[in-house]
Amino acid sequence: MRDFSQDHRWLSINTATVRQSRAQDLPLPDILEACARRRIRAISPWRDQVAAAGLANVSRLVKAHGLELSGYCRGGMFTAADDAGLRAADDDNRRAVDEARELNAACLVLVVGALPGALAGKAAHKDLALSRQQVHDGIGRLLEHSRAAGMPLAIEPLHPMYAADRACVNTLEQALDLCDRLDPSRSGALGVAVDVYHVWWDPKLRDQIERAGRQRLLALHVCDWLTPTTDLLNDRGMMGDGVIDIPRIRGWMEAQGFAGYSEVEIFSAANWWRRDAGEVLDTCIERHRSAV
Amino acid sequence: MRDFSQDHRWLSINTATVRQSRAQDLPLPDILEACARRRIRAISPWRDQVAAAGLANVSRLVKAHGLELSGYCRGGMFTAADDAGLRAADDDNRRAVDEARELNAACLVLVVGALPGALAGKAAHKDLALSRQQVHDGIGRLLEHSRAAGMPLAIEPLHPMYAADRACVNTLEQALDLCDRLDPSRSGALGVAVDVYHVWWDPKLRDQIERAGRQRLLALHVCDWLTPTTDLLNDRGMMGDGVIDIPRIRGWMEAQGFAGYSEVEIFSAANWWRRDAGEVLDTCIERHRSAV
Repeated sequence: MRDFSQDHRWLSINTATVRQSRAQDLPLPDILEACARRRIRAISPWRDQVAAAGLANVSRLVKAHGLELSGYCRGGMFTAADDAGLRAADDDNRRAVDEARELNAACLVLVVGALPGALAGKAAHKDLALSRQQVHDGIGRLLEHSRAAGMPLAIEPLHPMYAADRACVNTLEQALDLCDRLDPSRSGALGVAVDVYHVWWDPKLRDQIERAGRQRLLALHVCDWLTPTTDLLNDRGMMGDGVIDIPRIRGWMEAQGFAGYSEVEIFSAANWWRRDAGEVLDTCIERHRSAV
Repeated sequence: MRDFSQDHRWLSINTATVRQSRAQDLPLPDILEACARRRIRAISPWRDQVAAAGLANVSRLVKAHGLELSGYCRGGMFTAADDAGLRAADDDNRRAVDEARELNAACLVLVVGALPGALAGKAAHKDLALSRQQVHDGIGRLLEHSRAAGMPLAIEPLHPMYAADRACVNTLEQALDLCDRLDPSRSGALGVAVDVYHVWWDPKLRDQIERAGRQRLLALHVCDWLTPTTDLLNDRGMMGDGVIDIPRIRGWMEAQGFAGYSEVEIFSAANWWRRDAGEVLDTCIERHRSAV
């Protein structure tokens, strides 16, 4: 297992972690600059932040700062209530692949979607199996495009508390079942993003990480589970402040040959987003060395 | 599948659903009386409510009203930071079995516990595997007592969002693995309580209900998953107000021979607990007929 205690060579910052500084939106160019100044070597930006700053501009800045992309957030949301919705999702996902390609991302992270309409509070139906079939089919279609672009797709199983509104792929086992069906040859075109926040509770986690193996372990996201957790979405903790045994999970990943970045992704409306982004990044560096 | 649309013969009220009326605590004798007046035939009371009203008194009232107990809530909390804590849990669980026996409950529901101290915000450690071993061992010890008392134990897998602080058994598969290890002969002494709120998201739910079979399906709890859900503990919905396809899950249970009560258990600090308990019970009856 790699020793993270001496430096932060393998730290990546998911830009959602500092999307706000002192509760004010922080533009992506400022985030890149703040990361580069701290010799952070990798980021994972969100599409809305890239769009706001302009893709070509972000691409130029990424190169100028010598940054790598541990991933690109995000494609997915494959489910829809009608064919027009499915087609719109297909189109948008192909664009996401192209953007990820332009930014030279290690993978496109997929948050797959769930019951259509549920995120807005009005689910169109209750048939989770149908949504799961749409996800299977949607990834299958996207793979034609992403293979040609040479962009690996990383299915991110989300915590079961998001099964209704954000992602109906909720365990690593389920994500790997999709990989087996859609890419049985383990070509590298399809794998998983393991976010400790979503999977730490799973009694089968170690077994499924072993099952995934190096070719399907495309990303590692870290933060922590707080007790109590006061909000389902935006109360994630800084590594070391919660109950997840992060080094143990990282060890399982690395035992399979995973050698990529440890990407910090923290949604924290009441705490970290209210602090100065510089303080947040400095804390990420410190905790990367002591708690990951 | 049984037709629930014509009556509420198979409705049970978990008394947590009306533990408050208009945000004021409602004593258990009043709950029993309100249920009996509506020809509700079964309840599942909580230990703290029974203790407050007196076990002998509650036992007498249950008989006088002709009520059955679809379960008794709850035993468990097997995990501890030291041996004294484990022994205290053992003692308390034996008392819970005896109380369930006195009240002639169909089963004692087990919420197994998780990381010791986490519920108070200070986890003693992060070793979920250790907690899971303690749960296995604790149920094993309790089985000696519960078998002698003739009281079935129902392991209730809780939603993964409670893995840190309330229960480290989080899927039906995991609960059934425990059953296989501790009661391989399927004697009926050990089984599961299936609460749709906790398990509805699980892609393996149908398979695991089939695996459980009639002998291990000891209880069915119903409520609904709201979108959005604003609180991890106390924002459960009334059946029909959320996204869970309850009849489908009940159908899977009944296909295995489950023929027990459908027990309504709703924790709802901001909505149902603020309403009049009579209105809540009337709504439970209506929804039992239309949405379960």
